[in-house]
Amino acid sequence: MTHALTGDAHVCGRHTPEDKKPGWWDEMIGPGKAVDTNKYFVICSNIIGGCSGSTGPQSIDPDTGKPYNTNFPVITVADMVRAQKRLVEHLGIKKLLAVLGGSMGGMQVLQWAVDYPDAMDCFIPIATASSFTPQNIAFDWVAREAIKADPNWKNGDYTPDMPPDHGLAAARMLAHITYLSEESLGRKFGRTLQDKAEFDFKFDFDFAVESYLQYQGQRFVERFDANSYLYITRATDYFDVTAKHGGDLNATFARVKSAALVVSFSSDWLFPTEQSRKIVDALLHNGKEVSFCEIKSGYGHDAFLLEVDTLGRMVRDFLHYRQEARNHE
Amino acid sequence: MTHALTGDAHVCGRHTPEDKKPGWWDEMIGPGKAVDTNKYFVICSNIIGGCSGSTGPQSIDPDTGKPYNTNFPVITVADMVRAQKRLVEHLGIKKLLAVLGGSMGGMQVLQWAVDYPDAMDCFIPIATASSFTPQNIAFDWVAREAIKADPNWKNGDYTPDMPPDHGLAAARMLAHITYLSEESLGRKFGRTLQDKAEFDFKFDFDFAVESYLQYQGQRFVERFDANSYLYITRATDYFDVTAKHGGDLNATFARVKSAALVVSFSSDWLFPTEQSRKIVDALLHNGKEVSFCEIKSGYGHDAFLLEVDTLGRMVRDFLHYRQEARNHE
Repeated sequence: MTHALTGDAHVCGRHTPEDKKPGWWDEMIGPGKAVDTNKYFVICSNIIGGCSGSTGPQSIDPDTGKPYNTNFPVITVADMVRAQKRLVEHLGIKKLLAVLGGSMGGMQVLQWAVDYPDAMDCFIPIATASSFTPQNIAFDWVAREAIKADPNWKNGDYTPDMPPDHGLAAARMLAHITYLSEESLGRKFGRTLQDKAEFDFKFDFDFAVESYLQYQGQRFVERFDANSYLYITRATDYFDVTAKHGGDLNATFARVKSAALVVSFSSDWLFPTEQSRKIVDALLHNGKEVSFCEIKSGYGHDAFLLEVDTLGRMVRDFLHYRQEARNHE
Repeated sequence: MTHALTGDAHVCGRHTPEDKKPGWWDEMIGPGKAVDTNKYFVICSNIIGGCSGSTGPQSIDPDTGKPYNTNFPVITVADMVRAQKRLVEHLGIKKLLAVLGGSMGGMQVLQWAVDYPDAMDCFIPIATASSFTPQNIAFDWVAREAIKADPNWKNGDYTPDMPPDHGLAAARMLAHITYLSEESLGRKFGRTLQDKAEFDFKFDFDFAVESYLQYQGQRFVERFDANSYLYITRATDYFDVTAKHGGDLNATFARVKSAALVVSFSSDWLFPTEQSRKIVDALLHNGKEVSFCEIKSGYGHDAFLLEVDTLGRMVRDFLHYRQEARNHE
């Protein structure tokens, strides 16, 4: 299991009784669920560069005894996957049944399938793309500008008691808009006002959607590190699974040795279905076994976390089929 | 003629030999052009709240002898149009042939048609909507957060030598992304690098699209005032032409007395064709004379400034027809 931009290793269940919420994909994973932990052993590790466990900008540099901050090397999705591969080797696993994940998790899935073609029976890239588009890169640029413009950022050397919360919240709010569809924003908020009957004609929030964004930004800064956000978004910018194969997706996927289930969502404008189709076409071009589904959904990119019923059935059946095939080998 | 968010009264031609560029819609307007100044007298004034001439936050408050800054009252699109109506009355014009404009200019056009139904023979709202959507509002919120987060903003009381350029540039970059389509960004930049053959693996710009955005942001702060940007975007948030008519577009357009040409662009995701169709449907519901065209274009919202050939032919013929009809009355 690979996690998305701001996800972490806590993929399902409650680790301690103090956990207020279960893991981020709890509806998908667990005993009797789509990814049935009575049948499968699920592994999910924190990506490097993150702030939830693996080494990242907040980690202490042994040479200086201080956090790396911006001395941390810029990382790529391939680096994240390389670290995951080492973990799997450390655990003594020869071949995974599946590698699956959505969004930036889906990028890691594609990288796994290309870099370690013998390491899995199948892979499931969800709501993702074979490379980050210029529009994606552009949004990331503005998000990082917001963080760097925060006077508390101090070229990355902020202190835990004065982090660049304002900038990080703005970055999160911007990203959050791209996770939703115009349809879902319209249905959820429309032009409804927040706890008032008339406009204030001020610059504080009047609209419910403004209050919601502000809340999302504030919640996010409580759990995420600004430097990590810089590093991880930069990794997504650099993501292009064809990079080491002459920019040719057909040539890249010639390396793949496992079957794929590719899933997209109809209202996802951050990673539109067209991007998934490119992946499918290139796999088919190479005669690979591939199933594809565009799930009709109004939720935008967030659908990969919300359309659990439809997605879950698909993933459950695909994993079951691959497991059966594996047992007959 | 009504101008868009960051436009101004300089709509065509060069006012002085020092003008480096002609007006922002020069390809549409001028002798022999679609809006033929040999036939028509064109009026375009700076909106109130702006920073190019009419009263705005930079203007001197006569009570204090200092700029209004954030003491300037929050304004609406209806306020802009009310000021324009006064100008037209001052010029002694009883009835305009047409009111036309794109984007926020289109909002003013709709407001004109509803608030002053007897003041024109026709109106041409281009690439616009009858109300600002929650997605539009959300983007504006983040843009304003970027400005307010800039330490130079100082609650609006910045000095001319230290304006909040960083925040205003970020706001502009964000808006700029929404003006382009994924297709146009892909065609124009793709994942091309800027003056280098390999990634630097740093946080400065590597990609051409990043360099382009940065350039757009820097150019913008040279010509625009941050407080004006706050006020004008707030006016667009509040825009809902149905607001004084019970939120009912059919009831709102019952007031309209002139013919309309409504134009949208296929790849415009900021003001998608669906929004223009709502306008057309409500006008038809009221038995109004309305022409509608969705122009196929890959340029996104910016198409209203770029697809001048197609748009120009349509506007030229529509104006000609309305002028003929007027002459026969």
